[in-house]
Amino acid sequence: MDHQVVVWQNNERKDLIVEQGQNLLEVLHHNDVSLDTPCGGQGHCGKCKVKVLSALPPVSSKEEELLSDKEVENGIRLACLTKVTVDMEVEIDKEVELDILTEGINQEVDLDSQIKKFVFEIEQPDLDDQRGFLTRVQEKTNTEEITLKALQQLDQVDKEDFLTAIINTDSQELIGIEAGKKEELYGIAVDIGTTTVVLYLIDLNTGAEVDTYSFHNPQKVFGADVISRVNYTLDDRTKVEEMQNVLIKKFNEGVLSLTDQNEIETDDILTVTFVGNTIMLHTLVGLSGESIAKAPYTPIFTGGVELDPTQLGVNINSEGVVKLLPSISGYVGSDIVGDMLAVDFNSFADSWNLIIDIGTNGEMVLGKQDNIYACSTAAGPAFEGAKIMFGVAGIPGAISKYKITAEGEIEYQTIAEQPAKGICGSGLLDIVAELLITGFLNSKGAFCKDEELESWQQERMTEYKGFKSYIVLTADEAGIEEDILVTQKDIREIQLAKGSIAAGIEVLLKEANIDYGMLDNLYLAGGFGNYLDPHNACVINLLPEEVEDKIIQIGNGAGIGAKMYLMDQKITSYADQLREQVNYIELSSSPEFQTEFMNSMEF
Amino acid sequence: MDHQVVVWQNNERKDLIVEQGQNLLEVLHHNDVSLDTPCGGQGHCGKCKVKVLSALPPVSSKEEELLSDKEVENGIRLACLTKVTVDMEVEIDKEVELDILTEGINQEVDLDSQIKKFVFEIEQPDLDDQRGFLTRVQEKTNTEEITLKALQQLDQVDKEDFLTAIINTDSQELIGIEAGKKEELYGIAVDIGTTTVVLYLIDLNTGAEVDTYSFHNPQKVFGADVISRVNYTLDDRTKVEEMQNVLIKKFNEGVLSLTDQNEIETDDILTVTFVGNTIMLHTLVGLSGESIAKAPYTPIFTGGVELDPTQLGVNINSEGVVKLLPSISGYVGSDIVGDMLAVDFNSFADSWNLIIDIGTNGEMVLGKQDNIYACSTAAGPAFEGAKIMFGVAGIPGAISKYKITAEGEIEYQTIAEQPAKGICGSGLLDIVAELLITGFLNSKGAFCKDEELESWQQERMTEYKGFKSYIVLTADEAGIEEDILVTQKDIREIQLAKGSIAAGIEVLLKEANIDYGMLDNLYLAGGFGNYLDPHNACVINLLPEEVEDKIIQIGNGAGIGAKMYLMDQKITSYADQLREQVNYIELSSSPEFQTEFMNSMEF
Repeated sequence: MDHQVVVWQNNERKDLIVEQGQNLLEVLHHNDVSLDTPCGGQGHCGKCKVKVLSALPPVSSKEEELLSDKEVENGIRLACLTKVTVDMEVEIDKEVELDILTEGINQEVDLDSQIKKFVFEIEQPDLDDQRGFLTRVQEKTNTEEITLKALQQLDQVDKEDFLTAIINTDSQELIGIEAGKKEELYGIAVDIGTTTVVLYLIDLNTGAEVDTYSFHNPQKVFGADVISRVNYTLDDRTKVEEMQNVLIKKFNEGVLSLTDQNEIETDDILTVTFVGNTIMLHTLVGLSGESIAKAPYTPIFTGGVELDPTQLGVNINSEGVVKLLPSISGYVGSDIVGDMLAVDFNSFADSWNLIIDIGTNGEMVLGKQDNIYACSTAAGPAFEGAKIMFGVAGIPGAISKYKITAEGEIEYQTIAEQPAKGICGSGLLDIVAELLITGFLNSKGAFCKDEELESWQQERMTEYKGFKSYIVLTADEAGIEEDILVTQKDIREIQLAKGSIAAGIEVLLKEANIDYGMLDNLYLAGGFGNYLDPHNACVINLLPEEVEDKIIQIGNGAGIGAKMYLMDQKITSYADQLREQVNYIELSSSPEFQTEFMNSMEF
Repeated sequence: MDHQVVVWQNNERKDLIVEQGQNLLEVLHHNDVSLDTPCGGQGHCGKCKVKVLSALPPVSSKEEELLSDKEVENGIRLACLTKVTVDMEVEIDKEVELDILTEGINQEVDLDSQIKKFVFEIEQPDLDDQRGFLTRVQEKTNTEEITLKALQQLDQVDKEDFLTAIINTDSQELIGIEAGKKEELYGIAVDIGTTTVVLYLIDLNTGAEVDTYSFHNPQKVFGADVISRVNYTLDDRTKVEEMQNVLIKKFNEGVLSLTDQNEIETDDILTVTFVGNTIMLHTLVGLSGESIAKAPYTPIFTGGVELDPTQLGVNINSEGVVKLLPSISGYVGSDIVGDMLAVDFNSFADSWNLIIDIGTNGEMVLGKQDNIYACSTAAGPAFEGAKIMFGVAGIPGAISKYKITAEGEIEYQTIAEQPAKGICGSGLLDIVAELLITGFLNSKGAFCKDEELESWQQERMTEYKGFKSYIVLTADEAGIEEDILVTQKDIREIQLAKGSIAAGIEVLLKEANIDYGMLDNLYLAGGFGNYLDPHNACVINLLPEEVEDKIIQIGNGAGIGAKMYLMDQKITSYADQLREQVNYIELSSSPEFQTEFMNSMEF
């Protein structure tokens, strides 16, 4: 028996016919309804909320745990826990706009892209010079090989006086030939984040960033974190292709938008570079990433590979190149290599540099000259808002700054100055720091007993689903429906996250045989690293106090690295060399890390 | 108004609905009815015969000229001159089997193909060796690059102990990886003749020729000779694609047949080499060849190019390579380069060698060490049976040997010992030689007057469509319906053909500043060159008498060259070097050639 499901999103109505008993989340995904599903529909995260407008289904115990009473009352249910057994009408929040970090420090780069254009004049043949057209063109362009497409283009332009050759200078291959003078040459650097993807359109003749385009990583419907995504594909090879296809489809939409907006021909886009964590790059090329998810955590590939755009299904000039930045290991991805390029790791030849890129994992690299060490800590996605009761990503309305200015007085900022919707990573860090400073929390991370708190403090404490909780904002203060809280459980998640990062840093320092005092620069990369308050990061002991004045926030280092990789082909071999110099430290089997981790949990 | 046309061929009936006034030949071509059309349907050659079974249409003056009275009476008409204005029923001879020359001299070749397989053992990773799978495979295989397909295959075999790598040793690229030991490795050498195409399936592990497959060049429906085909495409770019597509479609059918017959997987075919005249190779890759057809006769490309099988649409392993043998000029094609490889041109470092390959053009190359000269003479297709009243290609029933043993007594051979159907090149050469020896013809190529002939000779003379004609075989002698003749016009065609070849040889000798006596070897390549009687070639002065004992018939040298190109990658650069050493002499603007041509017309 089939049921009718009416879905409202952005004031648009979709009418779906659904088989009896189907999972509502799967139905929505298969009908391209966008819905946040960090845990991939496993009933853990409580984010795939729908508002049921028709008769309310009963509430499961899981939903009771993950939803507030008010939400349950208002008809909110979790799609992943709902089966369609009657006709339904549901409403879904519109997809949130992420505030994506596209900026960062500037690096000087040579303009020397692998694909170049070259305009030249050519003489017509006569009976004294009957050499083939290709021979004459190759002489002018200093090329030896030619692609089929270029060969066919030659047949169309053999009467012209001026020609433009497109040359892959690495393979010395003539990959295109156009009539007249046609020098337009573009490339796209792509930062594939687990959550968001950013495209940078670069004019390869000037180095200018012409435009950017970003979108939610469409793979997130299969899980918010990389492991959930790998697990999704494990039982079925076609799911690996599905994972790849959704990503490439969205990428191609981005290319189309960029070319339309900027009046560029797709054929003038000749290079794409991709940066991302190792599993993202695996899924991009149609690999499962399974071997990375399981011990001994080995990737299929780490080296920077160069691929054929057509084979990959990427809609740029079919004769162009697609290049993936090299990674270091299964959990130290090419984004860290991008960060290293962005801070010009090698040029600080005589200083000790540490780069930390915090996402689901805390990836970090420490080095001086060719003495380089890297590791990855399973920090968990707490700082991305996951596993935190009122945690959200960096969406409009996310509390991103927070300060207790006086007894019971609060100052805060939300992203895009929207009404508060939840707490993102930098806000969470501020809140914990303030709770420590003002004595709500002890150094072990426990909320103080009521009797240890002053009365204004007692007023901001409550209980939520059995956990002691601090009221970050009351509904009144924020002008919203429901109080926003931080629970004792949230604090524990943050302790785990910050503890593992701090422990990772300790292990790297020991490997390099240096101490904090010897560190010259500490670069924080990525969105969280860019927006966090460095002082507060030291207050909660995410980073040690003695480095506070050495912290440099570099922004989206991975994206910067991808742009550099795009613009200067010499960086390809440099990045590969950098990668090979890195000593990767596997923490999962390191007793030293376990000890440091236990020591680093306290604030 | 539409008409019904019933077509019978091979006892099979096709029912076609045809618009009023459509050309019958076009109708037949578009419905995949195979029919010989040397002139491409221009009403010149008289070969596109159909037998009308329904009411006979009137006979045009062109048909009266091109068909015998008996044929006209029996309802034979020319499809290219027939418009469909009523319902019709026609019968068409079944497509003839050509006796295609696939054999030739043997050349020792190194087995060193560009694509190789390599079986190796690989250790599983552990926490002490977390290097990516690709890194470990690259170390074992000594490769640096990888294709997307190979990368995706890696993901499937990372649990195996033994792997087989497929490596492009030229680009040092890993192009495939298979589980276990899988050493099968094949290649196909292809000789694209204007008339016929031959595929040689080669086991690249042993060098053995496993099988061959041949077919009529499907482009012949657009014209028998290359110029007709170029002309066909001039007004419409899509016809260039059509010309390419019919060829590649038939090639792929050939690959399928070879793999089926020999129980080989398509993916185990990793290299294809193509040899052919310059226009054939242009049409193969989707170029019109227009610039070759018009002065200054320059090709788009002559160099040996390497192409992507997928882009070309060729159904072998998608990561394999397609290689075209280099050509010398628009009318000295890669077949001559193949011939040069076949006779190992360079190894005769201290002798003067002449290679002649006679097709529609007489292509020839003369050289010693790096002193090499080549030219092409527009011999015309007389020796291929075209433009000759009773001329046929090398089909079963073609008169291939002919001797007047005594007064009025004849000995002859037909191909496949079938009843005589016409005269092919070698038969024609024998007949002319015999007519000269026995005094039917004078040295100017004119039939003697009746009074100069003996009575037995007079009995074998007749008149046909206004031309004096020699009765090659009477219907009685041959047990066929109609006498087979050679007309005075045919003799003129042969004089033109042989004269231009002889003149070409003279010009080359003069360029090289040698005379016939200094020539060490004269190689005859190709079907006609292989089957002709060398003595008779000297009798008719196609070749001078003094070289008779230096003639070596090498068979299908082009095919041999393509096989060598397939088996030994070192030959790629050797062939390119050979090509560059050749001095091409353009005869169309050579006054010397014109003089020699006039002198060489006599027998």
